[in-house]
Amino acid sequence: MKVGIDSISIDIPKIHLPIQTLALNRNIEPDKLIKGLGLQKMSFPDVHNDVVTFAANAVFKLLQQEQINPAEIARIYVGTESAVDSSKPIASYITSLLEQHYGTGTFRKCDTLDMTFACIGAVDALQTTLDFIRLNPTKKAIVVATDNAKYDLNSTGEYTQGAGAIAMLITANPRLLAFSNEVGISADGVFDFFKPRRSFSKNEILNTTDNPEWFGILENEVSFYKEQPVFDGQYSNECYINRTSEAYFHYKELTNQTGAMYENWENVLMHLPYCFQARRTFVEIYAKENQLTDENKVIAKSEAYLDFVNKAIFPSEIASGQIGNMYTGSIFLGLISTLEYHLQNESEISEKKMGFIAYGSGSKSKVFEAEIQPQWKAIVEKIGLFEKLNNSTEIDFGTYIALHKKEQKQSVVAPKNEFVLDYIEKENPVLLGARYYKLV
Amino acid sequence: MKVGIDSISIDIPKIHLPIQTLALNRNIEPDKLIKGLGLQKMSFPDVHNDVVTFAANAVFKLLQQEQINPAEIARIYVGTESAVDSSKPIASYITSLLEQHYGTGTFRKCDTLDMTFACIGAVDALQTTLDFIRLNPTKKAIVVATDNAKYDLNSTGEYTQGAGAIAMLITANPRLLAFSNEVGISADGVFDFFKPRRSFSKNEILNTTDNPEWFGILENEVSFYKEQPVFDGQYSNECYINRTSEAYFHYKELTNQTGAMYENWENVLMHLPYCFQARRTFVEIYAKENQLTDENKVIAKSEAYLDFVNKAIFPSEIASGQIGNMYTGSIFLGLISTLEYHLQNESEISEKKMGFIAYGSGSKSKVFEAEIQPQWKAIVEKIGLFEKLNNSTEIDFGTYIALHKKEQKQSVVAPKNEFVLDYIEKENPVLLGARYYKLV
Repeated sequence: MKVGIDSISIDIPKIHLPIQTLALNRNIEPDKLIKGLGLQKMSFPDVHNDVVTFAANAVFKLLQQEQINPAEIARIYVGTESAVDSSKPIASYITSLLEQHYGTGTFRKCDTLDMTFACIGAVDALQTTLDFIRLNPTKKAIVVATDNAKYDLNSTGEYTQGAGAIAMLITANPRLLAFSNEVGISADGVFDFFKPRRSFSKNEILNTTDNPEWFGILENEVSFYKEQPVFDGQYSNECYINRTSEAYFHYKELTNQTGAMYENWENVLMHLPYCFQARRTFVEIYAKENQLTDENKVIAKSEAYLDFVNKAIFPSEIASGQIGNMYTGSIFLGLISTLEYHLQNESEISEKKMGFIAYGSGSKSKVFEAEIQPQWKAIVEKIGLFEKLNNSTEIDFGTYIALHKKEQKQSVVAPKNEFVLDYIEKENPVLLGARYYKLV
Repeated sequence: MKVGIDSISIDIPKIHLPIQTLALNRNIEPDKLIKGLGLQKMSFPDVHNDVVTFAANAVFKLLQQEQINPAEIARIYVGTESAVDSSKPIASYITSLLEQHYGTGTFRKCDTLDMTFACIGAVDALQTTLDFIRLNPTKKAIVVATDNAKYDLNSTGEYTQGAGAIAMLITANPRLLAFSNEVGISADGVFDFFKPRRSFSKNEILNTTDNPEWFGILENEVSFYKEQPVFDGQYSNECYINRTSEAYFHYKELTNQTGAMYENWENVLMHLPYCFQARRTFVEIYAKENQLTDENKVIAKSEAYLDFVNKAIFPSEIASGQIGNMYTGSIFLGLISTLEYHLQNESEISEKKMGFIAYGSGSKSKVFEAEIQPQWKAIVEKIGLFEKLNNSTEIDFGTYIALHKKEQKQSVVAPKNEFVLDYIEKENPVLLGARYYKLV
């Protein structure tokens, strides 16, 4: 029995900052980002967006386009590293938002949960859900990747920002993509990129040693939550290369494949923290598979490697360059991009294999394969990602800064037919911080 | 094929505050807490403890007591609502701590992940892992519940605090407990208990409207992370009763059982946010099953119900009353308590059924059954929970307050043969907030 992705949908901000604008304002040569890293535009959340609205909108679109009754959905599992709460999962927000449309209690028997492991959490949500469907083939489930990849202003991560959610309907006998049973893995507990609390003593903040109560905090230590990560870009790149390479060869060993395994893959779908990450790092695996002895940077410029990149990796980069990093969603964004590319080009990819190389900082890589199903075109026609990207509204640098600094109070583009953040409770002590949403 | 818990271990703080001490200092009649709610002692984390040390120590104990080679462990999945990072999972900390003992790279092929849904996240980690073992019966996996149930001083949750971790080895043909395939469920996205960011404008904090940079925060909004939840005790109790009752009857329907289902259960294991929560709320199900028309508070005092409580629920309460709330671990704490009780009493429980009624705020309940396996005694003898509780060191009220307010800098009880928090990086910008641990 085959299990996999039956259908897929995406929600992204309707606004973007051109990378050219960012580069010029940061005194960076634009081509360093545009030609060097493949970056074109950066999706940025509008005032009414957050990871809950992205997730709920993506699931809503999926249910609508497939005309699914909520009662058919046995579970909604979310992968995220942008949780809005330390206890209540985004998944439980999704069902309560959707119930505004479908009616109270329509998701009463839907199992909801959030999973976290940096950018690989949604792959884990997918794999645990594939297991669930293997054991319960008559059921339907949804996996969601939702994140806001926000970096500090002026940091080296700033130009890689992005945001959005992808929802996938997981079933037996899927119409889009069927997954392998085996999964190659490599893990190592490290600090290449993480999102810790930022803690300071009250003495550092208030210049007093007697620990006064302050904003309801009785501890002599104040912890700030920041959406932005702490990271070491170069070290994280090394971890990415080591983990992905080890997981790749682990998968090859598990499945007893000989020869260059990637040659069986129509496309290579790697986690893309920025557009060109895959083409820049896959060379490690390419060199090992072909027992090449030149330095990787020499191999990377070879005609053979560039031909491979153009055929296998380029299709996944198209959307990444227009959106930026989606963290847990990035690898699936590459999948959608690849599928729409093949649809546009009328490629014959039915029954072709795709290779997935996922990565999450902290660190873990998983490698697995999937096979395109015969009905793929009819599903991909519903996604409309490239169209969304064409209709995105450009923002200027001042608006970007105002949004980033949370100084902007009015939506840049008025929301329509979508869930929006309405307000966050500030008064009622038993609801302090509760987030309220509405469908507009 | 049976799948379930092959072995189990627990790590809790070595210190506790007597509830009597807390009650007297809060001007609460002690018997209101002791006789009214069943509370005796509250476990409280020492200076060197956190949810990572609890988790790593519990897993370390499990590996040692079962003499397992790390390479045999295919996954470690953690349920928690006390994550120390928004991106890097506690599970990845666990393997890096254990590698200090077992050697670098010994967990390189171990899949690690955190799951969050309030107090039910570890049940979700268990069920996804049971699925994994059903599909991969030769593999071994570990599920961990780890939390610090910290509440505000002087709040109505203060006397329910507790902390610790439970680790479970999940295998095919388990020696302790085998689980049913079916799971009853009830879910509703609500705010009965949650752990939101606490956000304030810079104007509220700094009394200025021009959004100056402050502690590296450029946004015009500062978010504090608090370990303590926002909650509405009475409403949460209603949610608990509604969800658990619905999930119970959903399970009964799924498994086509007739008559009072709980009568087939040797013990009822419910999530215990405080000791007497199960006996106080199960009456709802009891009344429905027996079609009783009296008010629940009348039924709760009936001889028949009290006999049922003493037989089916009391064994799970013993440890809860000595430790407090463990959040995700609480239902498994009730399991260990029940098993040690039966070991002490030389009960014959082999092949008896246990009923699990899990709950997580936000909100979700899951109901399922398990069967005690013939080798249970040999496994339960290794746990030593009641012995740990007897050896716990009492702290006075001043020490409790100093620990709660993070004013205490020296460990109350010097750690020995365990992982401890060593330090948190404060200087290196690419490691800010990284947590370092050591085995002492």
